Amino acid sequence: MIRIGILGYGNLGRGIECAVRAANDMELVGVFTRRDPASVTTLTGVPVYSVKDVLNWKDKIDVLILCGGSATDLPVQTPEYAKYFNVVDSFDTHANIPTHFANVDASAKETNHAALISAGWDPGLFSLMRVYANAVLPNGSDYTFWGKGVSQGHSDAVRRIKGIANAKSYTIPVESALEAVRNGENPELTTRQKHTREVFAVLEEGADAAAIETEIKTMPNYFSDYDTTVHFISKEEFEQNHSGIAHGGFVIRSGRTGLNQENQHIMEFSLKLDSNPEFTSSVIVAFARAIKRLSDKGDFGCKTVLDIPPALLCEQSPEELRAHLL
Amino acid sequence: MIRIGILGYGNLGRGIECAVRAANDMELVGVFTRRDPASVTTLTGVPVYSVKDVLNWKDKIDVLILCGGSATDLPVQTPEYAKYFNVVDSFDTHANIPTHFANVDASAKETNHAALISAGWDPGLFSLMRVYANAVLPNGSDYTFWGKGVSQGHSDAVRRIKGIANAKSYTIPVESALEAVRNGENPELTTRQKHTREVFAVLEEGADAAAIETEIKTMPNYFSDYDTTVHFISKEEFEQNHSGIAHGGFVIRSGRTGLNQENQHIMEFSLKLDSNPEFTSSVIVAFARAIKRLSDKGDFGCKTVLDIPPALLCEQSPEELRAHLL
Repeated sequence: MIRIGILGYGNLGRGIECAVRAANDMELVGVFTRRDPASVTTLTGVPVYSVKDVLNWKDKIDVLILCGGSATDLPVQTPEYAKYFNVVDSFDTHANIPTHFANVDASAKETNHAALISAGWDPGLFSLMRVYANAVLPNGSDYTFWGKGVSQGHSDAVRRIKGIANAKSYTIPVESALEAVRNGENPELTTRQKHTREVFAVLEEGADAAAIETEIKTMPNYFSDYDTTVHFISKEEFEQNHSGIAHGGFVIRSGRTGLNQENQHIMEFSLKLDSNPEFTSSVIVAFARAIKRLSDKGDFGCKTVLDIPPALLCEQSPEELRAHLL
Repeated sequence: MIRIGILGYGNLGRGIECAVRAANDMELVGVFTRRDPASVTTLTGVPVYSVKDVLNWKDKIDVLILCGGSATDLPVQTPEYAKYFNVVDSFDTHANIPTHFANVDASAKETNHAALISAGWDPGLFSLMRVYANAVLPNGSDYTFWGKGVSQGHSDAVRRIKGIANAKSYTIPVESALEAVRNGENPELTTRQKHTREVFAVLEEGADAAAIETEIKTMPNYFSDYDTTVHFISKEEFEQNHSGIAHGGFVIRSGRTGLNQENQHIMEFSLKLDSNPEFTSSVIVAFARAIKRLSDKGDFGCKTVLDIPPALLCEQSPEELRAHLL
């Protein structure tokens, strides 16, 4: 049995708890939290400990899964805990991946641990699809579309506006752009042509709806480059219809082969997810299995999803995979 | 530069020739044929040699790509040439993969070569998608649909019927079945419910169309389990409309997560290919790059696509991939 520890118990931590339970070759040793452990109740009754005690578990956990945020938690936590544990995180700030990789790699190599950063679906499964598609079709164009799904960052930005009680912002791929890509038209698409944004917001009493709508639509970096629709709704409607955590997206590569590039090929990968955190957790747990196996082989240091032989992700043996899934 | 040799020069061999030309880090050393080399002209002017002389090239070829057929060529050729070369093939008889793997593995390990069998899109990219999807969503159902595309085996079966001058058989996924799977309905689908077949045939003079149509539709193993449509057309129409080599297909996994399996997720991968052999060749060439890299590291023996870290498939360095595609 692969012994898993969870550090940080939010939506992602709960998703990991469920995904570990669904694996026949894994057991969950415990959840480690910065809160008072007595204040945290887990979904499955797995014990909760203070993060201050996690080093006591150094030899009782095969892979520690770090469920903190990418902005401030993981840049510190992953290099630190890679000194004591094999670790997996879901670091998703694309621009900072090279630095994060270097920091984690140094810690993990020095102490003979295996680490994997940026597991999830983007970065993660979508990265894998981009790499396979680029390897197979070197002459081509990549397109990644996200949604329909909630953008946490954009929802937060709206909630910070004065007069807003609550808000969710959805990212929606433009159907006609998707179709043009699927048809091999290789369009050059601006930000505005790829996605629209749709905001559902609850106003505080006496707020100026028209002024707030303008403030949202013109917010630089977040909304000004998109066609944004704003809906003001009641607290009740918000709670009933906008508490979901669904997401999804599309990775498409269109490329050409042949002596004179005369033949076109379209590769498309898509996800339609009821629960973004639970699906992300399921990806992380599969890569945690691979990290345990690499560590057992003495293959230490920092990895990404691009470095992992797919067969290492499955419970099944290589023989079973060759016989039934190849 | 990675030095590539091609053994066998049909549609697949020509596809490899084009794919190697599209790679900046590869060069094509030569084509090896069982025919009289003087009778073979290559697309790009690369030299043609007799297969009898291929062992003279033992130290001048990094990866020999075997472009023979799965029925009789590859079961003999791949284990044989793995004694002298790093090799890649596209062996696609799913049921015989374990035996073929064992034979190639023995040869390659004994002589310190790296070999990869069953590269292409199914087996190949579709296998990868099945494995990733099963690893991430252990509670779920797999669906693979093929087409619309030409089935070579079924076309051959029709051409063997007395009175048939020429024929093509297309495999077509049933759109309503695809939609049900995409909607997460997890249907149990019979062979007949997943695909239909459509045959375009040219009759010889005096042939009995009605009798032949019945013979096709009732042919066991090939057509009797499918709803098949048969069209008899002129030689001219056949040549004009049915010389294409397009293909494609879909791999879909629908699975559930959550404490009580309350959330559903759909993962879908699809291909739409103008040229089946050229796309297959492009996959093979990417895996040939990985085999060269494994051989350089001393990682010998037989591999499949499931054993290859994706980063090894690309021309770009791991650093570039992390910075731009992860």
